[in-house]
Amino acid sequence: MGLRKPEEYIQAIRHRKKAEIYVLGEQVEDVTKHPFLKPTVRAYAVTYEAAWDPALRKLAVAYSPYINEEVNRFNHIHQSREDLEAKVKLLRALSHKVGACVQRCVGWDAINALHIVTHMIDKKKGSDYHKRFIEFLKYVQKNDIALAGAMTDVKGVRSLRPHQQPNPDAYVRVVEVRDDGIVVRGAKMSITGVVTSEEIIVMPTRAMTEKDEAYAISFAVPLDTEGIKIIVGRQVNDCRRFEENEIDSLPGAFNHEAMIIFDDVFVPWERVFMFKEWEFAYPLVEIFSSYHRHAYGGCKSGLADIIIGAAYNLAKQMGIADKHHIREKLVEMVFLTEAMYAASIAASWRGRKMGSGCYWVDPMFSNVAKQLVTRFPYEIARLSHDIAGGVLGTAPSAKDFMHPKLKPLLEKYFQCLPDYPAEHRLRMVRLLENISLGVMFLIESLHGAGSPAAQRIMMGRLYDFEKAEKIAKYLARIEKELPEEIRGKPEPWRSDIEE
Amino acid sequence: MGLRKPEEYIQAIRHRKKAEIYVLGEQVEDVTKHPFLKPTVRAYAVTYEAAWDPALRKLAVAYSPYINEEVNRFNHIHQSREDLEAKVKLLRALSHKVGACVQRCVGWDAINALHIVTHMIDKKKGSDYHKRFIEFLKYVQKNDIALAGAMTDVKGVRSLRPHQQPNPDAYVRVVEVRDDGIVVRGAKMSITGVVTSEEIIVMPTRAMTEKDEAYAISFAVPLDTEGIKIIVGRQVNDCRRFEENEIDSLPGAFNHEAMIIFDDVFVPWERVFMFKEWEFAYPLVEIFSSYHRHAYGGCKSGLADIIIGAAYNLAKQMGIADKHHIREKLVEMVFLTEAMYAASIAASWRGRKMGSGCYWVDPMFSNVAKQLVTRFPYEIARLSHDIAGGVLGTAPSAKDFMHPKLKPLLEKYFQCLPDYPAEHRLRMVRLLENISLGVMFLIESLHGAGSPAAQRIMMGRLYDFEKAEKIAKYLARIEKELPEEIRGKPEPWRSDIEE
Amino acid sequence: MGLRKPEEYIQAIRHRKKAEIYVLGEQVEDVTKHPFLKPTVRAYAVTYEAAWDPALRKLAVAYSPYINEEVNRFNHIHQSREDLEAKVKLLRALSHKVGACVQRCVGWDAINALHIVTHMIDKKKGSDYHKRFIEFLKYVQKNDIALAGAMTDVKGVRSLRPHQQPNPDAYVRVVEVRDDGIVVRGAKMSITGVVTSEEIIVMPTRAMTEKDEAYAISFAVPLDTEGIKIIVGRQVNDCRRFEENEIDSLPGAFNHEAMIIFDDVFVPWERVFMFKEWEFAYPLVEIFSSYHRHAYGGCKSGLADIIIGAAYNLAKQMGIADKHHIREKLVEMVFLTEAMYAASIAASWRGRKMGSGCYWVDPMFSNVAKQLVTRFPYEIARLSHDIAGGVLGTAPSAKDFMHPKLKPLLEKYFQCLPDYPAEHRLRMVRLLENISLGVMFLIESLHGAGSPAAQRIMMGRLYDFEKAEKIAKYLARIEKELPEEIRGKPEPWRSDIEE
Amino acid sequence: MGLRKPEEYIQAIRHRKKAEIYVLGEQVEDVTKHPFLKPTVRAYAVTYEAAWDPALRKLAVAYSPYINEEVNRFNHIHQSREDLEAKVKLLRALSHKVGACVQRCVGWDAINALHIVTHMIDKKKGSDYHKRFIEFLKYVQKNDIALAGAMTDVKGVRSLRPHQQPNPDAYVRVVEVRDDGIVVRGAKMSITGVVTSEEIIVMPTRAMTEKDEAYAISFAVPLDTEGIKIIVGRQVNDCRRFEENEIDSLPGAFNHEAMIIFDDVFVPWERVFMFKEWEFAYPLVEIFSSYHRHAYGGCKSGLADIIIGAAYNLAKQMGIADKHHIREKLVEMVFLTEAMYAASIAASWRGRKMGSGCYWVDPMFSNVAKQLVTRFPYEIARLSHDIAGGVLGTAPSAKDFMHPKLKPLLEKYFQCLPDYPAEHRLRMVRLLENISLGVMFLIESLHGAGSPAAQRIMMGRLYDFEKAEKIAKYLARIEKELPEEIRGKPEPWRSDIEE
Repeated sequence: MGLRKPEEYIQAIRHRKKAEIYVLGEQVEDVTKHPFLKPTVRAYAVTYEAAWDPALRKLAVAYSPYINEEVNRFNHIHQSREDLEAKVKLLRALSHKVGACVQRCVGWDAINALHIVTHMIDKKKGSDYHKRFIEFLKYVQKNDIALAGAMTDVKGVRSLRPHQQPNPDAYVRVVEVRDDGIVVRGAKMSITGVVTSEEIIVMPTRAMTEKDEAYAISFAVPLDTEGIKIIVGRQVNDCRRFEENEIDSLPGAFNHEAMIIFDDVFVPWERVFMFKEWEFAYPLVEIFSSYHRHAYGGCKSGLADIIIGAAYNLAKQMGIADKHHIREKLVEMVFLTEAMYAASIAASWRGRKMGSGCYWVDPMFSNVAKQLVTRFPYEIARLSHDIAGGVLGTAPSAKDFMHPKLKPLLEKYFQCLPDYPAEHRLRMVRLLENISLGVMFLIESLHGAGSPAAQRIMMGRLYDFEKAEKIAKYLARIEKELPEEIRGKPEPWRSDIEE
Repeated sequence: MGLRKPEEYIQAIRHRKKAEIYVLGEQVEDVTKHPFLKPTVRAYAVTYEAAWDPALRKLAVAYSPYINEEVNRFNHIHQSREDLEAKVKLLRALSHKVGACVQRCVGWDAINALHIVTHMIDKKKGSDYHKRFIEFLKYVQKNDIALAGAMTDVKGVRSLRPHQQPNPDAYVRVVEVRDDGIVVRGAKMSITGVVTSEEIIVMPTRAMTEKDEAYAISFAVPLDTEGIKIIVGRQVNDCRRFEENEIDSLPGAFNHEAMIIFDDVFVPWERVFMFKEWEFAYPLVEIFSSYHRHAYGGCKSGLADIIIGAAYNLAKQMGIADKHHIREKLVEMVFLTEAMYAASIAASWRGRKMGSGCYWVDPMFSNVAKQLVTRFPYEIARLSHDIAGGVLGTAPSAKDFMHPKLKPLLEKYFQCLPDYPAEHRLRMVRLLENISLGVMFLIESLHGAGSPAAQRIMMGRLYDFEKAEKIAKYLARIEKELPEEIRGKPEPWRSDIEE
Repeated sequence: MGLRKPEEYIQAIRHRKKAEIYVLGEQVEDVTKHPFLKPTVRAYAVTYEAAWDPALRKLAVAYSPYINEEVNRFNHIHQSREDLEAKVKLLRALSHKVGACVQRCVGWDAINALHIVTHMIDKKKGSDYHKRFIEFLKYVQKNDIALAGAMTDVKGVRSLRPHQQPNPDAYVRVVEVRDDGIVVRGAKMSITGVVTSEEIIVMPTRAMTEKDEAYAISFAVPLDTEGIKIIVGRQVNDCRRFEENEIDSLPGAFNHEAMIIFDDVFVPWERVFMFKEWEFAYPLVEIFSSYHRHAYGGCKSGLADIIIGAAYNLAKQMGIADKHHIREKLVEMVFLTEAMYAASIAASWRGRKMGSGCYWVDPMFSNVAKQLVTRFPYEIARLSHDIAGGVLGTAPSAKDFMHPKLKPLLEKYFQCLPDYPAEHRLRMVRLLENISLGVMFLIESLHGAGSPAAQRIMMGRLYDFEKAEKIAKYLARIEKELPEEIRGKPEPWRSDIEE
Repeated sequence: MGLRKPEEYIQAIRHRKKAEIYVLGEQVEDVTKHPFLKPTVRAYAVTYEAAWDPALRKLAVAYSPYINEEVNRFNHIHQSREDLEAKVKLLRALSHKVGACVQRCVGWDAINALHIVTHMIDKKKGSDYHKRFIEFLKYVQKNDIALAGAMTDVKGVRSLRPHQQPNPDAYVRVVEVRDDGIVVRGAKMSITGVVTSEEIIVMPTRAMTEKDEAYAISFAVPLDTEGIKIIVGRQVNDCRRFEENEIDSLPGAFNHEAMIIFDDVFVPWERVFMFKEWEFAYPLVEIFSSYHRHAYGGCKSGLADIIIGAAYNLAKQMGIADKHHIREKLVEMVFLTEAMYAASIAASWRGRKMGSGCYWVDPMFSNVAKQLVTRFPYEIARLSHDIAGGVLGTAPSAKDFMHPKLKPLLEKYFQCLPDYPAEHRLRMVRLLENISLGVMFLIESLHGAGSPAAQRIMMGRLYDFEKAEKIAKYLARIEKELPEEIRGKPEPWRSDIEE
């Protein structure tokens, strides 16, 4: 079938079997028409459109050896370091078109992580998960399927392991094993872009012990599978999507995050990619999250570009763009933005080929990128607010602006330089407000792909403190010789690195 | 008449002549019943209630020598350093009751600034503004009037002075002088709490030159004066105020900021406190803004307490409040909060008595307090988001939570420790979301009482660089003697300091 | 005897019995003539001189009710909040004269802490330490004695309590009890200004348990007591003090820190102020360290003034003082400096009268001040380095500058604006180098009066998280009423607060 | 001749014609034996040794097409992105061996910049500088010459251009043109590693106008050329190099920076690479400085490794390495270190081939790397000081430690865990002190390769604000279409990019 057109994708999700989706206490009839969800549909559509856009095609399309065809990059298994870099570049470029989180990279990162880990499990256990997974991958690539990935469980009591929880369903688990498949129960939280996807890939969310084996499962299911309930979460300014005028909800692009409840859902064996191999839960988490943290240096620098552009335009409107202190703030925003991006670019080029043939990012740099993303967006937002002025929190509504009696007054009093109509100022203020105070740029930057503490644990494990100590001892002349280059501590998947 | 009860205040603003107020494109019938404005009414009512609350009375009431009676502290002229400290303490305490900006301190700071500056003008010019002002003050104190203060003009082209603007009304100005008073035109932006006030005190917003004299005016007018139009601005999550359930808009406390348009408004002479004395425009701005910056160390540390409390409770619900990295973040939030507060306390105790008998805050510490407030709340917000988790941007709506089919599922999956019902978690998440991402805690902290650059200019002027250089020269043995204590550069109002 | 003149002090320490003091591996003959120690002698002399300096007298002298005479403030027991503020002001002012840590406040803070704690012990135990202490105090005040304070033990294994240490002398302890006194053994580290003092006041360094009671001791001994060995520590650039020219070691003012070894030292009972009352070890630490942290907002802001002055002068020499980015950096340094100072001023004015009649600082603000001091000086140093330029690390030596062949070349090439001789630039560079990279401004700011973690523990304990949580619950409508003002958790000394 | 052994290099600089070098007011006889300069000799020797070290050879040696031989990488012209990455890796690895700035990359960056710019000048002007330069390069490569680079002029009045200076020699200039060459006069400041080099490459330090053409010159001269005077600058703790014991000056590795005075020095035409082509002064500065800023992500992360190792070891000695707050600080240091490194890695892989065939780094990422380096080392230093404790500023001297009477006492009292001898603690404290407070890690990180403001100007110019604004306008629906990818503003050398 090959690459789909955006309209084909929209038709497909409009006409599938009706999934059970709730928004603000009501069940959704058609996600493609619901004001709360349309922005995500549009974001997904942009990813399909990119494959047909001459300016983006080079980034948006890749050759897949698995089906010997071109595929949308969002369904591609990375074959090289260039592929890893293309991911980061594509996300930054698409952010500019979407004005929000593109939402489709979780599924993408999931298939790459499973490509590697199913191969690792098979090698150790003699199982055939990888073959199974490749069949699924071919189906996805041939049909240009929109994927979502679901990792974060609801987790109950944070200090207890899955099998110790008072609520045994606090982590998704197998509740029944059948000849033809398994039945799963539990819930996943904070799942991005799910209702506009066609398939959900489910992965465990943490390291497991043997006693947690019922929780060590990974699988894929269509969204409209019986027993799946999806509750879409709220976000800052979300109800503006229901307003008639477009201005106050600019850029009109929101993502959505949802809770998925698996209320005893059946999964056939051919869609099961991990089943009780508890010792591979952690490698899957770490490989997936390194991939996903790598994405953030791309998409969040893309959102930062929009914020810089909006602040720059507002400064021009006020006639202060060339004031030194404004310029300093703009440059600081650039610096912070490019620093996040640089770390993800570095993570791409220090990627390594894994046993399955897939390229994995450098985990240190990927975690560094994400850790920067947990801090710099708050400062970028603050600087943009500083430039934009208090009007960001006090500007009149678009409805006031359009009121016949008020319009002439606001056109007079809300304008700064006569070169710019007052409406342009209002539009730019709303764009900046909705992006810079939005969940996507703040909360999502902090917690997406794992909270700051998760990256810190991983950076602490990846850095070789013993080696650093030996260098210090050598230089303090406590030890005579600088030791030979010492390799990092062995990890389950280290031995899987080919190159 | 003496201290009013909160219900008396509410009746008063309900039954005044109808002011011309717009919210979301519609004119407001009754501010006390409008869902968008009710939270401000409640905030103001709390300030009246405090005078009758035994626990707060000591802070909320003060003795006024002008009417020889007790007055609500929000209408008090500071008679001592203790009064200055009481202001900061009162604001922190009331923030805890209101859950938002109390909104009534702008008018308070305006009367204190005018008390000082009218006296200064008279001394120099032989005018009688101070007497006029005292009459107004007595009226305010006797009737326990709710005041608003309006300083920020719309400002047009930022790099041009008022008289150079392409739009001559970009700053509020006199357009006509009559025997009985003046007619003013222009607009003020970002005015806090105005529609629930009874009188508006208008002040110039910047230094003026002789050519700007028509803009160097200060006066007071009742809100329902003919020709005044008020357009209430939008804020993050404002439309949640219209939702039926209370949870998603917790704490139900918002402030409002509005644009006031003076469409040729008449002001009688007895309400005019500055008229073309352009050389006093800047002293008024600097004295007022030092007062107002002083307030921020109180009210924003109060909001920070709420954020700390919410984050602490959420950490308990998840069972992680005693984890070291959570504790570290909580303590960091405490440190940042108390540092803001400390600077305002210091500004109180280094206050000085001015020629009019009113105590003014220390301007350096007041500016330091506000500069801290332009930075620390963003970091406090970030730390609270870190603790609360991604759920802050993805939690289901209260409507979903109340849906009969979803409620049992959400009670099961949204709960953490069994000791806490899931609804408590939702409530705390919404409280934290609405405060920590709200205009009041971020944008308002940044721009209220002047943008960061304004404080920097003032700190740079207040610090004696020449003295510091002389100290350095002495220590570098370029100069033999350390100079006698060198006084700061003379400012218009320096000579006005008595003590 | 009354207030001593600086020369009287110098004579006194020159002619005392020779104490056993080591510097760079050699025993010191006369501390007043040793190039390594002279700067400290000078600093101490400045504190004596201040009492006779009309410009400083008001700050430097106070009336003592204990001897009914004026005393040098460094030996004063705080009788009011004004006294607490005077301490902070005095330290800032003296820093400007000394160009370094004044070094005399440790002993001062020790006598104030012991004043309070001896009174607390007596009240609980019926002992008579306070009377004993007052006798000692009178001796100190009457003879205008120079005191040092010693708290930090060498501590051995950090995770073990004193009685668990493999080295039982890792904390100072009683090794013998006699009729006339006790014999102590152990060592104290990082003791400021000790060799130029006349008496050392020793205090425990941490909370103790009953098993540690032999370590719960406090006492005072003259420096030249038998068995005391003092090893003066090294500091950055210390050997420049031996160079002939003065320029490279500008400002010629260094502090010193030493290790004091108590090699079985006898202390008569009248000099023992705590003996095995282990439960008062922690209150003494906390009260002393709050006092001492309060000092840092004064002395470090004083050093920061010098750094600002030096950076400002260097910017003038280069002709860039009015460049916007230089101005921004100078103002940022001012802001950071005044923020540290503000917190100590606030700690003074929120001080409270204790049972002994002595005023104690507000511990929260005092800890906030010190926590700011653990961070801001590094940023102030960085900003000053930014302004000064790379020359700070590459300027030629004064010896090169004075070389007959090189002098004309350096006068030509090292000069910037012709208004300033090249030598002035070199002097200012050296002043800035020695202060901004010195132990006093960096390491001492970080660790003096307790490391950052110590302040964090105390801030965490002083803040009422339960109250904050209750406020949040009230605003989240989980609880109906805001609780009455809740007092902090009771501490041993809380009940000792009178006012 | 090919790759030299380290001893060959040392012999060469020992036996050259005596250059006129001053240290602390005295002329140096033999740089290889002078205690002040030996550390630099050792650093250079390590770069020669690396070419023969099997573990480093792959990084340290490269194939040069210009002489069809292997060369030391420090004299290599980058032929690929892999070469650019190898530079960063090599610098990090060598920092571990040297314990200081390696000092040899300035010359390296200079030859790469001149390779590109001489080619650009020729293309535009029809000159033959590139050929001349290649001849010089072959000489350097064939003889494995140690190069220094000199860019920073003394600059006089910062706000004036070279031709406007009151001192016409404030920038190096041509004072005479002869048939066989030119005579130059002026001085260069803050030149790294120069006295241990054999040739100095001189470049202009800023953009020039036509009137400055006498200053727009670049050339190479041997160090021992007549008329060159070198005055070595002072650094923190430099005089410890003269002390007999090694401990207090650990790691025994310092760099040096010197002022080079060109007192009418003759340069033959074949060594002149730019002569009055003023419009190429700025491209040379920008290309060189981007190269040089790229280096800092390598060498400073290498020094940071040492600091991490020392702090980790000291934490172990105290028995606190596994305490949570220590671990957090160590991980923070790792994060900051790897972020600096990541930006330089990214700058390597986004490098582009220039017209001359040489690969240039990505200038945005290179400037981002350096800007990070102007901030993070101060924070890394602070964190290491926090872990190490106050002992960093108060530890006894090695001479005290070796004193027969004090040694047993210090072995007892200076030890923490019994597993580690006290001397190891002293060694580690000194190593950390000398590196973390040293010029190399602080001042050099701030000002080397250009001050922070220089990077900010360049980042501001490289970022496409107009494009960002257009994206914002598109998303604010002010413009209908997102513009085609817009290229950056054209720069003189942009057209020179091949790939």
